Amino acid sequence: MKVFIVGITGAMGKTICNSADDYEVVGGYSIEEDLENNIYNDFNKVDVDFDVIIDFSNKNVVDDTINFAVKNKKPLVEATTGLSDETFKKLEEASKEIAIIQSGNYSIGVNAMESIAEIMAKMLKDFDIEIIESHHNQKVDAPSGTARMLIDAVKKERDLNEVYDRHDLHEKRKPNDIGVHTIRAGSIVGEHTLIFAKDDEVLELTHRAGSKNIFAKGAIKAARFLIGKEPGRYDFKELLK
Amino acid sequence: MKVFIVGITGAMGKTICNSADDYEVVGGYSIEEDLENNIYNDFNKVDVDFDVIIDFSNKNVVDDTINFAVKNKKPLVEATTGLSDETFKKLEEASKEIAIIQSGNYSIGVNAMESIAEIMAKMLKDFDIEIIESHHNQKVDAPSGTARMLIDAVKKERDLNEVYDRHDLHEKRKPNDIGVHTIRAGSIVGEHTLIFAKDDEVLELTHRAGSKNIFAKGAIKAARFLIGKEPGRYDFKELLK
Amino acid sequence: MKVFIVGITGAMGKTICNSADDYEVVGGYSIEEDLENNIYNDFNKVDVDFDVIIDFSNKNVVDDTINFAVKNKKPLVEATTGLSDETFKKLEEASKEIAIIQSGNYSIGVNAMESIAEIMAKMLKDFDIEIIESHHNQKVDAPSGTARMLIDAVKKERDLNEVYDRHDLHEKRKPNDIGVHTIRAGSIVGEHTLIFAKDDEVLELTHRAGSKNIFAKGAIKAARFLIGKEPGRYDFKELLK
Amino acid sequence: MKVFIVGITGAMGKTICNSADDYEVVGGYSIEEDLENNIYNDFNKVDVDFDVIIDFSNKNVVDDTINFAVKNKKPLVEATTGLSDETFKKLEEASKEIAIIQSGNYSIGVNAMESIAEIMAKMLKDFDIEIIESHHNQKVDAPSGTARMLIDAVKKERDLNEVYDRHDLHEKRKPNDIGVHTIRAGSIVGEHTLIFAKDDEVLELTHRAGSKNIFAKGAIKAARFLIGKEPGRYDFKELLK
Repeated sequence: MKVFIVGITGAMGKTICNSADDYEVVGGYSIEEDLENNIYNDFNKVDVDFDVIIDFSNKNVVDDTINFAVKNKKPLVEATTGLSDETFKKLEEASKEIAIIQSGNYSIGVNAMESIAEIMAKMLKDFDIEIIESHHNQKVDAPSGTARMLIDAVKKERDLNEVYDRHDLHEKRKPNDIGVHTIRAGSIVGEHTLIFAKDDEVLELTHRAGSKNIFAKGAIKAARFLIGKEPGRYDFKELLK
Repeated sequence: MKVFIVGITGAMGKTICNSADDYEVVGGYSIEEDLENNIYNDFNKVDVDFDVIIDFSNKNVVDDTINFAVKNKKPLVEATTGLSDETFKKLEEASKEIAIIQSGNYSIGVNAMESIAEIMAKMLKDFDIEIIESHHNQKVDAPSGTARMLIDAVKKERDLNEVYDRHDLHEKRKPNDIGVHTIRAGSIVGEHTLIFAKDDEVLELTHRAGSKNIFAKGAIKAARFLIGKEPGRYDFKELLK
Repeated sequence: MKVFIVGITGAMGKTICNSADDYEVVGGYSIEEDLENNIYNDFNKVDVDFDVIIDFSNKNVVDDTINFAVKNKKPLVEATTGLSDETFKKLEEASKEIAIIQSGNYSIGVNAMESIAEIMAKMLKDFDIEIIESHHNQKVDAPSGTARMLIDAVKKERDLNEVYDRHDLHEKRKPNDIGVHTIRAGSIVGEHTLIFAKDDEVLELTHRAGSKNIFAKGAIKAARFLIGKEPGRYDFKELLK
Repeated sequence: MKVFIVGITGAMGKTICNSADDYEVVGGYSIEEDLENNIYNDFNKVDVDFDVIIDFSNKNVVDDTINFAVKNKKPLVEATTGLSDETFKKLEEASKEIAIIQSGNYSIGVNAMESIAEIMAKMLKDFDIEIIESHHNQKVDAPSGTARMLIDAVKKERDLNEVYDRHDLHEKRKPNDIGVHTIRAGSIVGEHTLIFAKDDEVLELTHRAGSKNIFAKGAIKAARFLIGKEPGRYDFKELLK
């Protein structure tokens, strides 16, 4: 598999390059041109042969990436976050001509957890639900994007209100509360725990990320999946089937 | 809901009596007759009105319980373990006339875990799987029945070999190994953890039982579910839908 | 060992009675007199022989309990909470004549955790510290008394500010923050976790209570420890040596 | 602080170079000479100024490292494992002239855990003890060296027999057993959990390593600690005080 990476000099781009074993990175797009290494800053100049495009760039580049993919009739793994409604429309349009996967999180484990969270919320209808997310001490946003994803997943089955602070509240927990707890400590890469508790029993589901490589690995899996597929939008979760 | 309990003076029978709030225990069967409290040691003498039968007795009583249920046209929650093939046939036969649920484990949480274990084994095909079970220091069998249930669940999706001891083995783990770890300590009621791990990520699912009451609560849920149902065999897992 | 229990008909009193194996409960004090079972509601009427007094009553009874212990020259395990300054003075005074242990928490495990928390805070000076406490959904106060005890323990070594809510704060964690997280779910008896995290490593210490019996067991241990001791104040933590 | 690294081109040597921020790596020793970068393969040729030596090489180089340190009157952090008795004698001799720390594990967290394990074994005399260690699926030795270190720590206080397999044993746990459980899964860097359990309560202590950097960080801490110290042997655990 020959991969073209948009955002090749970014953190995720580099990770995909460095962990190449059963695939080949043949070139990429970056703001800094480096033609010797097939790194272009103009999609029109691209002069390499590739099977699939992975885009870990930024939202301002995505429209050009889509045009580039359509022009070359190559499948696209879109991994950039913060896309505008217009870009989403453009993706929809492009999917008539090429195969596309778009997701905000390419970790196999996190996607599995999201699916299971929804199933658990359905199975354990009258259990209390709480969520804990833990990240390094430099992270400023809270709760994490993944925590929000998991909260949304359980909310598909249950009408829940988020509670962030019970300190000095002096009130009993309400059945449709979901306590959301944000731990910041050391250099924790990312941990998420869902707690389902009822009389005398607790079910806990925890995902622990060891490094951001999991996103690169997932994008590569998605790329391999798309090759040879008919044009259309594909869901990353199909890889879990 | 009026409940008749077979095995009413056993541990689980007592628990169901003691936790009665939105249901009523109207009588039961035991080897020790206590007619004042509607406890019979002969099914023919039973002279109370009830809606459903819960059987937490022993395998030698079950055939009589089934006859009693059929004769009274009342639904049956069969919770006795170690049933013979003949008893299973008898249950099948009886289900033409009454509604029946039979399970070896009436914990909502354990049943949910069993279903999720199967789903995870399917979703996370190339992840390594390990299982840890922890119980009190008086338990002699290992691994626990629940651990076996969970191992069977993941084996539906994966061809796995159980490994119990890696001490001084000096061999790399094989992808289709499943490490099975038995912790015995203190008075732990019952904990089961499934670990799914792959490059840089781990998903863990843990069930923690606080007391054996969870089995009583599940049987009560099953009883309530059966009332008014058509004759037939029902799966306890339907309560998780 | 012959034990006299003040508050013998309360929850903890009953627990001590029910778990008597290698000790004997010879009688007790309660608001409801039951002379047949040696339960008195007037200390002057007490007419049984005993080796030690355990007081799990309420703060209004404690002064009388102390007088009763001094008069009988018997050691006292004082386990009632919410004592006034005057009662503490009275205990101090009484300790010239009898051996006394007073503590707000007689769990061996929680007391060990408190000691270790202090040691860890000293050893791991530049680690970030967070604490999670989990209890059943009926508990209205937060954080738990035990969590406060543990926070005080780490504060002996570190100047820390408690943070209860990081939601939408958009600020980096400060090194002298201690995040305090209150989980309320199901019927969890009591769980406390201290997290110490620094670059690429985490140390976690968790205490999990299975029932309130641990307080009864610890009080019995304290009673046994006191018998034969010289008058004076003894620290429950001496039992951990 | 100017650091000279023996084994500078090895995994740990590189890590120390790459994470240099508030210290400077001025040169090192390696089998492959690279004079341009002050990397020597002959200690006699070394021509740089330094404050302290860190040795992460192999046991065959250590004697020369010690001679080099003594000749230069510089403190030595000895981090190579598998040292012979003779080398230990040589270290002892050298410590009359220079300050030395020698340890098989420079993780702050693991060393803290070792100390706490010993304290817990002492405090919780009649608790059952079990240990779980988890590492990646490529590790062939079991249990891990760190697990052995922790087992030795609790054995200082308790006479314990290691049990590796309870499968089909059909025996009650003995109070002086210590269950040792080896999990191998995915790419787990290293996790160790000590469980202390008694009636109705459990205390768990877990160390989780995110990367091998923790050993480099600890060695740097040790180096900084040694500068300016009198000749002698110093214990890495003094850094925890």
